[in-house]
Amino acid sequence: MQKSYNIPTEQKPAVARVKVDKVFGSEWIEKDDLLAVEEPLEIRLGYGEPGHRSQQSIAVTMRTPGHDFELAMGFLYTEGILQNVDDILKIQYCTESNTREQHFNVVRVELKEHVIPDMSLLQRNFYMNSSCGVCGKASIESIKVSCPIHQEEPDSKISARLLNRLPEILKEHQKVFMHTGGLHASALYDLEGNILLHREDVGRHNALDKLIGAALAGHGLNRNSWPLAPYILLLSGRISFELVQKAAMAGIRVICAVGAPSSLAVETAKEFNMTIVGFLREDRYNVYHGIYRLAL
Amino acid sequence: MQKSYNIPTEQKPAVARVKVDKVFGSEWIEKDDLLAVEEPLEIRLGYGEPGHRSQQSIAVTMRTPGHDFELAMGFLYTEGILQNVDDILKIQYCTESNTREQHFNVVRVELKEHVIPDMSLLQRNFYMNSSCGVCGKASIESIKVSCPIHQEEPDSKISARLLNRLPEILKEHQKVFMHTGGLHASALYDLEGNILLHREDVGRHNALDKLIGAALAGHGLNRNSWPLAPYILLLSGRISFELVQKAAMAGIRVICAVGAPSSLAVETAKEFNMTIVGFLREDRYNVYHGIYRLAL
Repeated sequence: MQKSYNIPTEQKPAVARVKVDKVFGSEWIEKDDLLAVEEPLEIRLGYGEPGHRSQQSIAVTMRTPGHDFELAMGFLYTEGILQNVDDILKIQYCTESNTREQHFNVVRVELKEHVIPDMSLLQRNFYMNSSCGVCGKASIESIKVSCPIHQEEPDSKISARLLNRLPEILKEHQKVFMHTGGLHASALYDLEGNILLHREDVGRHNALDKLIGAALAGHGLNRNSWPLAPYILLLSGRISFELVQKAAMAGIRVICAVGAPSSLAVETAKEFNMTIVGFLREDRYNVYHGIYRLAL
Repeated sequence: MQKSYNIPTEQKPAVARVKVDKVFGSEWIEKDDLLAVEEPLEIRLGYGEPGHRSQQSIAVTMRTPGHDFELAMGFLYTEGILQNVDDILKIQYCTESNTREQHFNVVRVELKEHVIPDMSLLQRNFYMNSSCGVCGKASIESIKVSCPIHQEEPDSKISARLLNRLPEILKEHQKVFMHTGGLHASALYDLEGNILLHREDVGRHNALDKLIGAALAGHGLNRNSWPLAPYILLLSGRISFELVQKAAMAGIRVICAVGAPSSLAVETAKEFNMTIVGFLREDRYNVYHGIYRLAL
């Protein structure tokens, strides 16, 4: 399930320097400051026989540049468009045909020639398929179709105290957030609390797609450690339905977040029997489902 | 530009009651808790001559139930699909044709019979139109096409100290957030710091769409107070490009936020000469553009 690819040598910066007027009461001074960069990324899919390759624009997402190939791979996988990353031939930035100038905001994922993507999945329209109109129940059902179910559970439990330490461990790794305050983070830990992977983005769904894409590509993990069932996922913000969906697609069993979950996030976690933790602090947290995985 | 409509008498709840295991160190107790509800809302557009009405599904957004008609109206307007809310005949929840049962997750906006929506705008694909691939610059250009430009500026400046008080004023009004910690808020103030409108949602773009939709419908404001140029907008979280875009479409000149702006949010605000304030605290804040509107 894992795939290596070349990391592009040149990328857009993730941080922008700006002049800012800092106001204190009625005083103000001009200072230099750093902002998290937000730029659109278009993800395109290339497929077909040599000489008859087709191209389809899949999505435009507002993201922070960096780890763009992982983002594309994670997005295609967690949205169910790609069931197997071995179907990918290569990933590259698009180039202007006459100047060969690279466009760092357009990524093209080339599929192997025998692979035909299911175009019916290209629109994220699974909500529409329910005869009862759209509802959270239908959203959950739609994930079940493509979600890998992993039933074997390890015997060992997770230290309840370990969870309290996860945000602090992440902070030591979160460089861009420290400077800009403008990024969401996703981090993957082993059961000893070691960070295996972490990714940041202005979009919380992008941060998780980048992390899952990196795991799919075999970064930060041993080979054969896909799906991500043995690990703990930490989210820096709140937990939406979409984030639980993506985590479920990666086989993750334990999601922790510094913020609150939504009702549908909890319902989805229950449906997939995931442990879901919110309001994670140094001395406390809430478990909305799956406390049996913790050693208390 | 303003339009009244009937508020539906029955709605889905915005808050869900759940059982939660509260963990303190190695101790835990089961308690009742409240979560912000997240449910999909499908927005449909109905148009055409009587007897030949067509229907188009425009979008599905994950939202917190409540103010759904305002959300639909605000979304259609801020995305440029609807230039004039007077084109709306009525807004209603869809009903099952045989049982007349209402679906509270599907809203249908009926246009007057002479109004033909521009279907080319129905996909939010403006990033695609640039010959240079997608980029932030192209995103900004695309707003200019449909954004109302309001050049008259008032002589009076805004008290710099007033801004410090806005989050505290909002807190007094933010009931659901207090209970769940799971909602984003948007609030509109006059220059004396009175809250005219505020809306909450699990999605920050939804909270702003609801607020703008409410303003379009004439709620909380005097008649003829559209566009929203005389008012101050407060966002409870960070400022993305999308939020500045929506504010620009409503003619808002001053955006304040408790969180950080992105690089593209600041660039967009500059392009439309909006005052943009981040990291708003009781004693300080950052002004990224347009400090001349403040009395310091």
